[in-house]
Amino acid sequence: MIGEFELIDKIRAGVSLPDGYLGIGDDCAQLPERDAFRTLVSTDMLLEDVHFLRKVQAGCTGWKAAVANISDIAACGGTPKGIFLSLALPKDLEDSWVMDFLKGFGDACNRYGFPVLGGDTCESAGKICISVTVIGQCPNGVAVTRAGALPGDEICVTGCLGDSAAGLELLLQSAARVDYDNYFIDRHLRPQPRLAEGLALARSGQVHAMMDISDGIGSDLRHILKESNCGAIVDTARIPVSDALRSLCGSDSGRMLDYAISGGEDYELLFVKSKGAVVPVSHTVIGTVVSGSTLEWKGTDRNFKGYNHFSR
Amino acid sequence: MIGEFELIDKIRAGVSLPDGYLGIGDDCAQLPERDAFRTLVSTDMLLEDVHFLRKVQAGCTGWKAAVANISDIAACGGTPKGIFLSLALPKDLEDSWVMDFLKGFGDACNRYGFPVLGGDTCESAGKICISVTVIGQCPNGVAVTRAGALPGDEICVTGCLGDSAAGLELLLQSAARVDYDNYFIDRHLRPQPRLAEGLALARSGQVHAMMDISDGIGSDLRHILKESNCGAIVDTARIPVSDALRSLCGSDSGRMLDYAISGGEDYELLFVKSKGAVVPVSHTVIGTVVSGSTLEWKGTDRNFKGYNHFSR
Repeated sequence: MIGEFELIDKIRAGVSLPDGYLGIGDDCAQLPERDAFRTLVSTDMLLEDVHFLRKVQAGCTGWKAAVANISDIAACGGTPKGIFLSLALPKDLEDSWVMDFLKGFGDACNRYGFPVLGGDTCESAGKICISVTVIGQCPNGVAVTRAGALPGDEICVTGCLGDSAAGLELLLQSAARVDYDNYFIDRHLRPQPRLAEGLALARSGQVHAMMDISDGIGSDLRHILKESNCGAIVDTARIPVSDALRSLCGSDSGRMLDYAISGGEDYELLFVKSKGAVVPVSHTVIGTVVSGSTLEWKGTDRNFKGYNHFSR
Repeated sequence: MIGEFELIDKIRAGVSLPDGYLGIGDDCAQLPERDAFRTLVSTDMLLEDVHFLRKVQAGCTGWKAAVANISDIAACGGTPKGIFLSLALPKDLEDSWVMDFLKGFGDACNRYGFPVLGGDTCESAGKICISVTVIGQCPNGVAVTRAGALPGDEICVTGCLGDSAAGLELLLQSAARVDYDNYFIDRHLRPQPRLAEGLALARSGQVHAMMDISDGIGSDLRHILKESNCGAIVDTARIPVSDALRSLCGSDSGRMLDYAISGGEDYELLFVKSKGAVVPVSHTVIGTVVSGSTLEWKGTDRNFKGYNHFSR
């Protein structure tokens, strides 16, 4: 079957954009408004047993469904406008699942200031399917895209990477009962989008390219490099990980790098700025943009492949 | 399981809206822009075997997926800004289905001026799931909502009703081979959204309430009455039907009314205006808004129930 990125390229090739638009290929599309502002739009589909499990607290699934989208507004440096929720629900689904899901979804939307403005509901003949569309806004020229990295730029990330992937692994190993008090499982199920940080980074004017880390930097950094026509050297020793993850992995540094580089759903920000440029958000420099198209992982003999939803 | 409208009411009750917003409950949400314009947003989810069949030409499914959403922008009197497409595709789906779907979807978007700006793709463990979000725009105060009908107003519709439902019935009766040359099947599979008509009606300033006819007026008129706190008397003899439908149904007027009132996906416009007010769009007056909350169908002893996706 046709691959995810091939399909996206095919759709992208058939579209001609009006002036001032940014379409397929970034965290958010940008639509010009009439007075130097832009509307930011992003949409995500989440499927039962592909992106979430029914046995997990529905409130966590609701929270994550909102955050995965809000994180795309963060990645462009936008402010909140609203959010839309579509649900396809199997007939045999308990009402309590739906109510808990809505509670978690609503909590995240309220916490980050996105009013729920609409959506769709229908009955599914199979599994649960969730589709979320988020709308944000920013002044013209402020939104940061994936294109714009330059050779010599520093590659930076916010927070720590890999906790969410470790949490997912523990979750998949859980039998009937999930331990919601576990640090890693909590990090996986209750991620925080970096909305304030994304806004501050975009407004600083210092950031050349930015995206949120949803598939792991092993995949996400490639998007920035592809859109910017650059390569990179990443110093794997500098990739920030939590003390908890370090302790979990012990001497198995390969396992730690797998979580931190190939693991998804950290929802931290990955951005690129001129060497030494000061930004108002705490971050770690993990590497350097170079000319060419090679992505080198310093400190390991492994390569980290991109992540493709269609060929897992 | 919880019903569709109960679920929507539950979501709606938990949302508090910023000034100038219109949220859940109309064809489109309205988000204020910064200079007296509004962004219009609507989203629809379409499921295999619930909303479409895989055996039907994928190009028709793509066309309809776009039109069902574009029709919501028409219903508010908006102009095109862009459209987003998310697809969950089973592994065993032929590439040709996907390519044909994209061609039909793209054809409708190009025809009505909505550039495809983004979306999402993922692998489905079950059936095909499609989610579309459409973005439009209009000046403040121009968008027509479902609220605003007043006692004494005339109830109007564009075009003819019921052809699409007759087409769906023929389609469901088709064995392996669908007759794409059949008038009714074509009307069902290649609907035309009333974008120019919706814009002209909104700009006329004469329309008190409007929506598109996607579930049949038996259901859709109830939305306008509910949002406007009114009742209505509809003269069933005045409901416009095509000569083809009249001929198909012969003396079975009950069957004809079923198609025209309870059948979905005509994508014509249903609107309400002061008695005698002139609008620049050809239409048929089918009834009168009255005070109270009763919906009376004159000329038949039948009642026409609302349509609920969850209890079909």
